[in-house]
Amino acid sequence: MERVYNFSAGPAMIAQSVLEKARDELVCYADKGMSVMEMSHRSSMYVDIFNQTKALLKQLMNVPDEYEILFLQGGATLQFSAVPLNLMTSGKADYVDSGNFAHLAAEEARRYGEVRIVASSREDNYTYVPALDGIRWNADADYAYITTNNTIYGTRYTAIPDTGAVPLVADASSNILSEELDVTKFGVIFAGAQKNIGPAGLCVMIIRRDLLGRQNALCPKLMNWELESKNDSMLNTPNTYGIYMAKLGFEWLRDLGGVPAIYQQNVYKANLLYDYLDNSALFTAPARRECRSLMNVTFVTGDPEKDAAFVKYAAARGLVNLKGHRSVGGMRASIYNAMPVEGVKKLVDVMKAFEKENA
Amino acid sequence: MERVYNFSAGPAMIAQSVLEKARDELVCYADKGMSVMEMSHRSSMYVDIFNQTKALLKQLMNVPDEYEILFLQGGATLQFSAVPLNLMTSGKADYVDSGNFAHLAAEEARRYGEVRIVASSREDNYTYVPALDGIRWNADADYAYITTNNTIYGTRYTAIPDTGAVPLVADASSNILSEELDVTKFGVIFAGAQKNIGPAGLCVMIIRRDLLGRQNALCPKLMNWELESKNDSMLNTPNTYGIYMAKLGFEWLRDLGGVPAIYQQNVYKANLLYDYLDNSALFTAPARRECRSLMNVTFVTGDPEKDAAFVKYAAARGLVNLKGHRSVGGMRASIYNAMPVEGVKKLVDVMKAFEKENA
Repeated sequence: MERVYNFSAGPAMIAQSVLEKARDELVCYADKGMSVMEMSHRSSMYVDIFNQTKALLKQLMNVPDEYEILFLQGGATLQFSAVPLNLMTSGKADYVDSGNFAHLAAEEARRYGEVRIVASSREDNYTYVPALDGIRWNADADYAYITTNNTIYGTRYTAIPDTGAVPLVADASSNILSEELDVTKFGVIFAGAQKNIGPAGLCVMIIRRDLLGRQNALCPKLMNWELESKNDSMLNTPNTYGIYMAKLGFEWLRDLGGVPAIYQQNVYKANLLYDYLDNSALFTAPARRECRSLMNVTFVTGDPEKDAAFVKYAAARGLVNLKGHRSVGGMRASIYNAMPVEGVKKLVDVMKAFEKENA
Repeated sequence: MERVYNFSAGPAMIAQSVLEKARDELVCYADKGMSVMEMSHRSSMYVDIFNQTKALLKQLMNVPDEYEILFLQGGATLQFSAVPLNLMTSGKADYVDSGNFAHLAAEEARRYGEVRIVASSREDNYTYVPALDGIRWNADADYAYITTNNTIYGTRYTAIPDTGAVPLVADASSNILSEELDVTKFGVIFAGAQKNIGPAGLCVMIIRRDLLGRQNALCPKLMNWELESKNDSMLNTPNTYGIYMAKLGFEWLRDLGGVPAIYQQNVYKANLLYDYLDNSALFTAPARRECRSLMNVTFVTGDPEKDAAFVKYAAARGLVNLKGHRSVGGMRASIYNAMPVEGVKKLVDVMKAFEKENA
C-alpha cells in the first residue's frame, strides 16, 4: 500500500522512518524480549527510554535547568483545567482569545476564578492574532495565557509578549518544535503530542520550577504538577508507548538538524503554499498575512460547493484530510514537521490543476 | 530475539499474535495509506475502529444497553478523583479498604467529601479482602466503592456485594475480562488498560446512564462523564492508538472463546501455581486461600535474600519481573489473560528446580 499525504490537523503525519523503526521494534525491543508496550514503567529498561526522551526534548528546545519537563496524559484539554488549578492562587488570570482552543481554555478557567480577556479576535472570526503591543496585561494576574498557534484559523504569534513578573502560560500544541521558542520567556509551555510530537494521548509540559506547589486543595492528584514533578511523571503509569514514540520522533528531528533546520524547511514549505495562494485567481487565504501559521494553511474558493469539489479532487490524487474545520469551512493544509516537502509541492500542483480545470 | 515470559503487574504481556498484527499494520493500516497513529479521530476510518472496539467490549462483557462505555485517558488514578467529582452529590461515600489502590482511591475521595471506610484489611497487611457479609453499608452514601482484585497482595473478591439502591463503583483494573462480571450489579466499573486490555494510557469505563449528570461544578471538563458520554469519548482527541490496540486484544479474546473460555484457562494457570505453592517446602503464598487472585499470585520464601536469589535465578531462565511490589517484598507472578499456559508451567518448573537446589 502506498502512503498518502495526510494533511490532518491532528492526529497528523509521523515521519515514515519513525513508523518503520516502531514497526521493527514492536514485538521485541532491542534485546529485551518484549515490546515497549509490555514494559513495566518502573523497569530500568523503560526508565532508560523515558530519560532519553526527556533529555532529547531538553536538548531540542534548549530547556534551562530551572524548568521541569513532564509527560502527562489527557492531551492539552486536561491542562485547560490544570492551569488554573495549579496557578490561580489569588483567583485572577489574563487570557488572549485568539481562537477556538484559547476560548475553550478561558471558559474552563472561569470555573475556578476570574478570567479577564485582555485581547480578542473573536469578533473577526479569528482571522488574526491580537497585536501584542496593544495589550494591557494586569499586574495582579496569577498568570497570563496565550495560544502560540491557532490550528483552526491558521494564525500564529511571531513574537512572545513580555508579561513582566506575571508568568506567561502558552498552549503550543500546534507549533511546538516547528520553530525556535525561547523557553525563558515562559512560565509554562504545554502541548498535546498529536501534531508535532507523536501519537495522541500525551501532553508535554515544560514548567518553571518556582511555579510548582501553588495548586488548589481541590486539584485532582493526577493534575497536580508538583506531585507529578516529584514522581518524574510517574505518579501513575504514564502513556509509556506514546512517550517511546515521542523519543523516536525527537531522534528523527535531532538527526535532521534540530529545530533550526526544521524551521527552515517549514518556512520553505509554507511559502510554497502562500506564494501560490497570493497569486491564485481561485483560492484565497483568509488569515492575515502578518500572522500566518507555518503549520496550518487555511484557504477558500469562496464557494462551498467548489471547496467540497476540491477536497474530493485532491483526495482522489492521494492528498487527504484537506477539509477545513467544521466551524470555519473551506480547506486547511496542516503541514507539520513530518509533512515532506514533496507533499506540499504535490498539493500546489494539484491546486494549480484544479484551478485550471475550474477557470 | 526470543520473547521472554513477562510476569509484570502492568504494563504487562500482550498476546504475541496481537503484537504481530499491530506490527504488520503499523506503517499502513488496511488500504488507508497511513498508520492508525496518524488518523484523525474524526475520520470515518478511525470512528469505525472506535465503534468496533466499543461493540467488542459490550459483547465480551454483556454490557446492557442502559450502560455507557467510555475510553478515557489518565488511567485508573484519574478516576480516583473523577468518581467523587461525578457522584458525590451529598458528600458521603463508603469505601472498602482492601489494598493499596483502594486506600489511595479513598484518600483522594476525602478531598471532596466524607469517606467512610466500611471494612478494611489494612491492619493485616491486606492479606485478604474484608468479608462482604459483615459489611454494614450506609444507605445515605452517594456510592459504595470496592476494588475487585488487589494487584499488590494477590487477593480478589469472588462475589459482588449487594449495596441496594446505593450504586456500586468498582475498580476492576487487574481482573477485568479475566472472569465473568455481572455488569448489572454495578453502577460504575472502571479499569486501567495496561493489565488485561492493552498498552497503558487508557481507562475503560462502564457507567449506568442514570448516574450521568451528577458532577460537581468544579469537575474539570475532561473528567466530566456526562460530557464525555455526550461526545462519545471524543471531547478531545482520545488515545487513538491505545484504543486500536484494545480492539486487537478484544478480537483475540473473542476468537479464543471470550471471557468464559479465558476464565477456564485462568483458573487452570492459577491452580498450577497455587497447587505447587501449597505443597512446597520453600515457598508459601501469603494471601488467604478463600480470596486468592487468579491474576496476581504472590509468594515468599520468608528470607529476603533467598527471594532475591530466586528472582535472579528465574530471570536468567527467561522469566522476568517476578519481584514483588516494593511495599510487600517477596515475589509476584502476574498471570493476566495474555500469559500463556506454557509460561506458568515453566515458572513452576523453575520454582521446583530452585527449591531442589536450595533444599
